[in-house]
Amino acid sequence: MTSDALKKILEHVRQTAMLQSTMSMLEWDQNTGLPPSAAEYRADQLTLLAGMVHQRRVDPELGHWLDELIATVADQDPSSPPAVIARCMKREFDRCRKLPQRLVEELSYATSIGQQVWVESKLGDDYPRFMPQLTRIVELKRQEADCLASPGQSRYDVMLDSYEEGATTQEIRQIFLRLRESLVPMIQRASERSAKLGPSVLEGRFAIEPQERFSKWVAGQIGFDFQRGRLDQTEHPFCTTLGPHDHRILTRYSQESFSTGLYGVLHEAGHGMYEQGLDPQWYGTPVGSAASLGVHESQSRLWENLVGLAGPFWKWAYPHLLEVFPSEFRDVAPSRLVADLNRVQASLIRIEADEVTYNMHILIRFELEEQLMSQELQVAQLPEAWNDKYRNFLGIAPSDDRTGVLQDVHWSAGLIGYFPTYTLGNIYSAQLYSAADRQLGGLDRQLERGEFRPLLEWLRDKVHRHGQTYLPMELIKRATGEPVDSRYLVDHLSSKCSQDQLLM
Amino acid sequence: MTSDALKKILEHVRQTAMLQSTMSMLEWDQNTGLPPSAAEYRADQLTLLAGMVHQRRVDPELGHWLDELIATVADQDPSSPPAVIARCMKREFDRCRKLPQRLVEELSYATSIGQQVWVESKLGDDYPRFMPQLTRIVELKRQEADCLASPGQSRYDVMLDSYEEGATTQEIRQIFLRLRESLVPMIQRASERSAKLGPSVLEGRFAIEPQERFSKWVAGQIGFDFQRGRLDQTEHPFCTTLGPHDHRILTRYSQESFSTGLYGVLHEAGHGMYEQGLDPQWYGTPVGSAASLGVHESQSRLWENLVGLAGPFWKWAYPHLLEVFPSEFRDVAPSRLVADLNRVQASLIRIEADEVTYNMHILIRFELEEQLMSQELQVAQLPEAWNDKYRNFLGIAPSDDRTGVLQDVHWSAGLIGYFPTYTLGNIYSAQLYSAADRQLGGLDRQLERGEFRPLLEWLRDKVHRHGQTYLPMELIKRATGEPVDSRYLVDHLSSKCSQDQLLM
Repeated sequence: MTSDALKKILEHVRQTAMLQSTMSMLEWDQNTGLPPSAAEYRADQLTLLAGMVHQRRVDPELGHWLDELIATVADQDPSSPPAVIARCMKREFDRCRKLPQRLVEELSYATSIGQQVWVESKLGDDYPRFMPQLTRIVELKRQEADCLASPGQSRYDVMLDSYEEGATTQEIRQIFLRLRESLVPMIQRASERSAKLGPSVLEGRFAIEPQERFSKWVAGQIGFDFQRGRLDQTEHPFCTTLGPHDHRILTRYSQESFSTGLYGVLHEAGHGMYEQGLDPQWYGTPVGSAASLGVHESQSRLWENLVGLAGPFWKWAYPHLLEVFPSEFRDVAPSRLVADLNRVQASLIRIEADEVTYNMHILIRFELEEQLMSQELQVAQLPEAWNDKYRNFLGIAPSDDRTGVLQDVHWSAGLIGYFPTYTLGNIYSAQLYSAADRQLGGLDRQLERGEFRPLLEWLRDKVHRHGQTYLPMELIKRATGEPVDSRYLVDHLSSKCSQDQLLM
Repeated sequence: MTSDALKKILEHVRQTAMLQSTMSMLEWDQNTGLPPSAAEYRADQLTLLAGMVHQRRVDPELGHWLDELIATVADQDPSSPPAVIARCMKREFDRCRKLPQRLVEELSYATSIGQQVWVESKLGDDYPRFMPQLTRIVELKRQEADCLASPGQSRYDVMLDSYEEGATTQEIRQIFLRLRESLVPMIQRASERSAKLGPSVLEGRFAIEPQERFSKWVAGQIGFDFQRGRLDQTEHPFCTTLGPHDHRILTRYSQESFSTGLYGVLHEAGHGMYEQGLDPQWYGTPVGSAASLGVHESQSRLWENLVGLAGPFWKWAYPHLLEVFPSEFRDVAPSRLVADLNRVQASLIRIEADEVTYNMHILIRFELEEQLMSQELQVAQLPEAWNDKYRNFLGIAPSDDRTGVLQDVHWSAGLIGYFPTYTLGNIYSAQLYSAADRQLGGLDRQLERGEFRPLLEWLRDKVHRHGQTYLPMELIKRATGEPVDSRYLVDHLSSKCSQDQLLM
């Protein structure tokens, strides 16, 4: 039986979600071709809506209803939808109440403009142009963290906690250090072997239109539902949800590099399929929302890396690729394709990094963000600090900011504390894949026949449909039968780095 | 000096305009590839925003400020911005106050769903599928008209007045009858001559991508500013404004017919350039809004027909066309191209109709709409009535509803009373062009050199920058020095229909 308070809350959330999804619409459009002169007005629109959403989220009436609901669910199963809604929404309500409306609106405006200026600065390799915007955003994020901090929480703890509930700076640092210990020798060995491969078959000239056609087809095959979504082009790939049946994925194609566009699509389709697997009847509530950014990333990584980079996937996909790019790949053995896709080599661009070095890119950003938040580092010093860390961690440094500090959209969008969830996602993804492989009786044979349905159904059942019913790490534990453990990722990467696997 | 009331009104309007432009964003997206399953939620979003906009428009505080402003501008120039804002907004305020919130929301929902169902019904040639939606929309529009009607106004008078202030059914009927008298013999003569031309050079196979490239280039050349706008594809061409510097035009390309896409772009670019010529500092207020739909249409028609269909335009454009479609047009003389573009022939599709028969399509819709509003005609009888009128007025009838009653988006969007403004626009456009031609010392020579700037500047000065400062017919009179007169259109068309002009 639905309590009166729950009914009122659901109606309240429904309207808030409509305004939020309208904001997502404005942001989607902002990233798919907003006319240059329209940036400022778009920021005004987003600011207005952000203010309205915030007002609804801190609505005292909502607070009363939540208190009522909490009382009625006290003796219920804590994983029942009303109990989850009461717990998660109360947390969010209390959190939002700590933020002044002014700050919410200023952040919305600064990040909307920030993203526009970032695009232009990146195109023009002009960090100084972006600096005032980034300075403003970092300052506002510091204010935000100060408003939200509980006793003993650092600013960066607050940021992390807002993306991955319960994660702390200390914990993340330890995970990263352990991972780094395993990765450094692995990178060394694998890089040497990759260097012997000679020129990559993935580089050359690849027309955009067939890339798009192939990528879209693959996304549909693995299970992204185009009745409830679409695929577009953008500067920085992302996935966004505009409604319970409207999930948008966006990628960037490169004429020079075949893998950029396709793996962008596989990654974003992984996100999109997670969103499509949430229960639409709970849309906008915690029960119908993703568990955390880390869990979200586990879904994108699973399809991009665990599935998409492996031999069995290409055994299935290769003949289809030949239809689309007959002359480009006619003389390329599938094993060679997979070897080139899995090359390990220190590189400058995170989203093009191989699976092994990828986590080093995250580690660099994690350290810089933490220093930015604590004011150890100033925005003006960021390019130099960036380049230093690339030299130290990966032995290379960018010659411009476009391929350095300006490469990612996140900071321009105010997403500080977001990057570490990528590595958490990698860890979760390997553990989930391993459990699915055991439980489904060997995924390799299914994938090489293009049978993606059982894996997707498994993820739907174990992860998607639960929304925020469980905390992220608890969800992974329930899905896999074990506590979160980074050894699955290390095992996966090190098995990849063995010669045989690399060349199939 | 800005009065206190004016300041408050402007701030109020600014927020309302942001919500309205957000609705336009949602509608733009709805017409450029909304995932099929997302239609219902999109309708919910639009309904929520429509309700919010309506609430703001009938806000009693706004009413008080408007009354205050009216008192302060009583002794001011009635064409000063404060006086215009007071007059036009008070009219709109009183109008909106007559509409119940429920009706506004129901109309928003019904037309959002209506447009989705229309697209599917049209694709499937399935009028019965669309019938319940259209019945609902017509019923709601009748209710709307009944709420708004002043004594002595028919429902259709109300509908007309909302798009073209002051226009009456009686007046439009007379204009149409006079026009029909001139057109019928003209169509007869010109059709006979066109029939002798043989197969059209505009029909064949034309790849979409070069069509798009050429159309976009032409739009930029005539003056559409892509820094403040963009061009996309859709099922039914339209133009929409998402902000003071964000004007979107959309067209439909056909592989079989070269003119469909390009003339869609010329038409919509005409609308877009009008919007781009409004004063951004008054965005959202009557001073920064288009005078009427008729005046809007005069701008699209002027660029599409008076400029785009004429010999001088093609003298300039032809070499560029050859670069894009070398093999398709190599053996076609420019004069032949112009002759085929200006063929006169009764046809089924309004937006592909020639300039001469076009107005007959409008006349048919005008009569059907009037009967729908007065309940002389029921939605179920519409296809038969449609086909009968096509037989009577144009001597042909569609063999399916896709090319008949389902061809236009308007009714699905609740736009009843809109069609007649197309013919008013044609009348205004010919009169404006003739005046510009006189005042600028001969447009032909400018156009054949691709000099579109003087004409655009003239339109900016005489029409665009005034917004709603003057009533539509008053604006045309001030721009041209004469009262509105359909003889300019008749003269233009009859000069076209003379053999020499037709073949240059």
